[in-house]
Amino acid sequence: MSEKQKKPQKLKARLPRGFVDRSASDIRAVNEMTAKIRAVYEHYGFDPVETPLFEYTDALGKFLPDSDRPNEGVFSLQDDDDQWMSLRYDLTAPLARHVAENFNEIQLPYRTYRAGYVFRNEKPGPGRFRQFMQFDADTVGAPGVQADAEMCMMMADTVEALGVKRGDYVIRVNNRKVLDGVLEAIGLGGDEKAAQRLNVLRAIDKLDKFGPGGVSLLLGQGRKDESGDFTKGAGLNADQIEKVLFFVGIKDYAASAVRLAELVAGTSNGSEGVEELNLIGSLVTSAGYQDDRIKIDPSVVRGLEYYTGPVYEAELLFDVTNEKGEKVVFGSVGGGGRYDGLVSRFMGQPVPATGFSIGVSRLMTALKNLGKLGQDEVIAPVLVTVMDGDVEAMGRYQRFTQQLRAAGIRAEMFQGNWKKFGNQLKYADRRGCPIAIIQGGDERAGGVVQLKDLIEGKRLSGEIEDNASWREARVAQETVPEAELIAKVQAMLAAQAEDRKRAG
Amino acid sequence: MSEKQKKPQKLKARLPRGFVDRSASDIRAVNEMTAKIRAVYEHYGFDPVETPLFEYTDALGKFLPDSDRPNEGVFSLQDDDDQWMSLRYDLTAPLARHVAENFNEIQLPYRTYRAGYVFRNEKPGPGRFRQFMQFDADTVGAPGVQADAEMCMMMADTVEALGVKRGDYVIRVNNRKVLDGVLEAIGLGGDEKAAQRLNVLRAIDKLDKFGPGGVSLLLGQGRKDESGDFTKGAGLNADQIEKVLFFVGIKDYAASAVRLAELVAGTSNGSEGVEELNLIGSLVTSAGYQDDRIKIDPSVVRGLEYYTGPVYEAELLFDVTNEKGEKVVFGSVGGGGRYDGLVSRFMGQPVPATGFSIGVSRLMTALKNLGKLGQDEVIAPVLVTVMDGDVEAMGRYQRFTQQLRAAGIRAEMFQGNWKKFGNQLKYADRRGCPIAIIQGGDERAGGVVQLKDLIEGKRLSGEIEDNASWREARVAQETVPEAELIAKVQAMLAAQAEDRKRAG
Repeated sequence: MSEKQKKPQKLKARLPRGFVDRSASDIRAVNEMTAKIRAVYEHYGFDPVETPLFEYTDALGKFLPDSDRPNEGVFSLQDDDDQWMSLRYDLTAPLARHVAENFNEIQLPYRTYRAGYVFRNEKPGPGRFRQFMQFDADTVGAPGVQADAEMCMMMADTVEALGVKRGDYVIRVNNRKVLDGVLEAIGLGGDEKAAQRLNVLRAIDKLDKFGPGGVSLLLGQGRKDESGDFTKGAGLNADQIEKVLFFVGIKDYAASAVRLAELVAGTSNGSEGVEELNLIGSLVTSAGYQDDRIKIDPSVVRGLEYYTGPVYEAELLFDVTNEKGEKVVFGSVGGGGRYDGLVSRFMGQPVPATGFSIGVSRLMTALKNLGKLGQDEVIAPVLVTVMDGDVEAMGRYQRFTQQLRAAGIRAEMFQGNWKKFGNQLKYADRRGCPIAIIQGGDERAGGVVQLKDLIEGKRLSGEIEDNASWREARVAQETVPEAELIAKVQAMLAAQAEDRKRAG
Repeated sequence: MSEKQKKPQKLKARLPRGFVDRSASDIRAVNEMTAKIRAVYEHYGFDPVETPLFEYTDALGKFLPDSDRPNEGVFSLQDDDDQWMSLRYDLTAPLARHVAENFNEIQLPYRTYRAGYVFRNEKPGPGRFRQFMQFDADTVGAPGVQADAEMCMMMADTVEALGVKRGDYVIRVNNRKVLDGVLEAIGLGGDEKAAQRLNVLRAIDKLDKFGPGGVSLLLGQGRKDESGDFTKGAGLNADQIEKVLFFVGIKDYAASAVRLAELVAGTSNGSEGVEELNLIGSLVTSAGYQDDRIKIDPSVVRGLEYYTGPVYEAELLFDVTNEKGEKVVFGSVGGGGRYDGLVSRFMGQPVPATGFSIGVSRLMTALKNLGKLGQDEVIAPVLVTVMDGDVEAMGRYQRFTQQLRAAGIRAEMFQGNWKKFGNQLKYADRRGCPIAIIQGGDERAGGVVQLKDLIEGKRLSGEIEDNASWREARVAQETVPEAELIAKVQAMLAAQAEDRKRAG
């Protein structure tokens, strides 16, 4: 380093675009949240398994919604044997690789969960990051929709375990087969129409954002946004658009069931899809989940291309204020669906699977809004200040600190430049330290220490103007023999805890 | 997916070299371990902070030991604005960037910890991975070696909190300044000798691996390994080598102090380094840490180039059997040191700092060896089997499952292909399910369920030969009214727990 110190180049300290550092309060909130989620999944009989952040690019496949992104939306690089590797963009494609690679050792159905970072090589925007955490659960080797029904119930239980009240959320369920049936019914069946179908799906997926009017434009000729940018539409005619909008606009599934059945009659999978939806409905009802918790809702599409059957989404229904000051429903915090083809890509045989993913940061934001997380009960450490720098004095400060820690008290000795004592008190104040321990030469000679109650002191010092007069007033300050240090600190902390409790 | 299913390409499912999937037992063991580490760090007054996995390449710097690796040992790619980004290779360089970027908001000394994955673009080998987890703690803005002393004590407390007995580990401390003094004393001072000094450091760092003989060769002309590969040496003469080996071979620091002081007398920082080592020794002794826990040991070097003062290492002293069947000391599980120049690279001012890193997987392996982790007390779920696939039957199975979960019992309904009942019992067996719940048509008509105690059953079935006769024998099987299902399952689980306790 010595050369570099002599000719400092003054590098610019900055993060790449779309990446963020995480604060202590966010980290603690996420830990609290993921522990609760994990408990629900374990309870449902799922076990953890994790994959690394890299996969071979071909193993991940290309299933992201916007194919017009740079590098297809993923971060890729070439290994030194020239093979392309990518950072995973979700946790589902890597799980499919894991199952296929270990197929002979794995006992199906394989029920697992995992939390981890995923990466999208997107243009970053407000609230849109290029690294974010997902928390997934999947059942691989599960052919029946009873497995999808279970996923919906597990999502509902998870949201409630996190403190969201019944009525403040709903799990919406749809089925890609029904959607495919509707598309086939309006003449969009067959392999040669695959691209157009995908455009229709993407248009529908914008229903939340643009409403039926906007989606109608995207289904037809196209839509111009506020900035004047034009998005080309899927090219449907008025009759086709009307049928798609009828389907995705269904609010009361039971009341629309007859018309829906007529619409998809004669298509290859449409009726099967309707039956599956009905079976999911029966199963969750049998288990006590009514449509205030799990609801069939044909507007659910899910953006990823690999879904083949039921799709489901957890939506939070309470209002939040968006960046424009408008009240909006909080919306989706996670979802998933059946992906029967994803493991089969690697295998000579079908391996049906279903699972879902929770967007951890987004859910954390929601829970913080509701006051269900980050009550931040972590007390800052007791600060042992440094008055003298000789070995003997330092040794004592160090000993006090270790004694406090040994007694179970969060504590630290001041590690900055101790020569300006004011800096130490400023540090204690900014950090929210509850108590400062002080020992100068006189006290050391007398075998005593001073304790400042910084919480009480802060309250009392409202009217005291400057630091000097504050110190003179000796607010909330006590001198005790060294041997009584621990007991006195414990008593002071207990009194502060009592005050906090009273203050509510 | 439908096109792809029709013409299956049979992708090969495989992980990129040097990356691994993590099993349930490893994940649970790491969670248990990191929770204990976190508790110690919190207790010492450290708070969590995290950075993302990417940094701009220039912000990370090039401090890895082996400069002859591909891409300098890091994974790098170009962003779409042509700037180079890299995956972090440790957690220290990103922390330095974080502090510099947020310098005005951060109150120094800044005491933080973080766990996360780091990446090395190395040739993978047995036990050497390209993605691994580190757990770091750092104090930034701490000029005095009392901060280094605290780090050593925290490492000792952490190792003990994880269950390693005193005497089975030691924290070794050295100082790069003393080492620099020795190098200066043998004529390797000055900027123009920087490369040679680095070669000497790397040779010393191999002391554990090759012993004094091998290091002597690396310090001199070079060393040929078993495979015949020749590593060029640092080119020292016999007298220089002797002095270096004297220094790194010091076992009893106090006994060698006079000769060491003579050796570094007159060098720019050597004597300062010796004083710092002595001060660390006094401080930890004052706080009650004798040299069975924290020991000054000049053989400690630490591979990273950015260290500028004290360096320290946590070593586990118990024997393990290596891949060749030899008994060897387990060795280092983490370490760190002072890096006063790392934040300053971004700043116009010095920002002294010190910290250390624990290698999470390596420590986990050690603790598993000691039987201190992975006692895997997680009980597999109760399995509700599926005998009939109609809506009514499925609804009941689903309801039983949810009732068990609501009562706090880990449970799942069989989600595979239910038509072969034998597969369900095989699944229960492989998964280690404690109880299977069975309800066929007759039982359903009678409003009853069968419970199989699979643990008791397994024990009793030792002498019963085939599945058919096992089922006939109705081993450890009971039929109860549906209403008593939960109570009976609870009683069976309690009896099994009692058995486990008795079995020790």
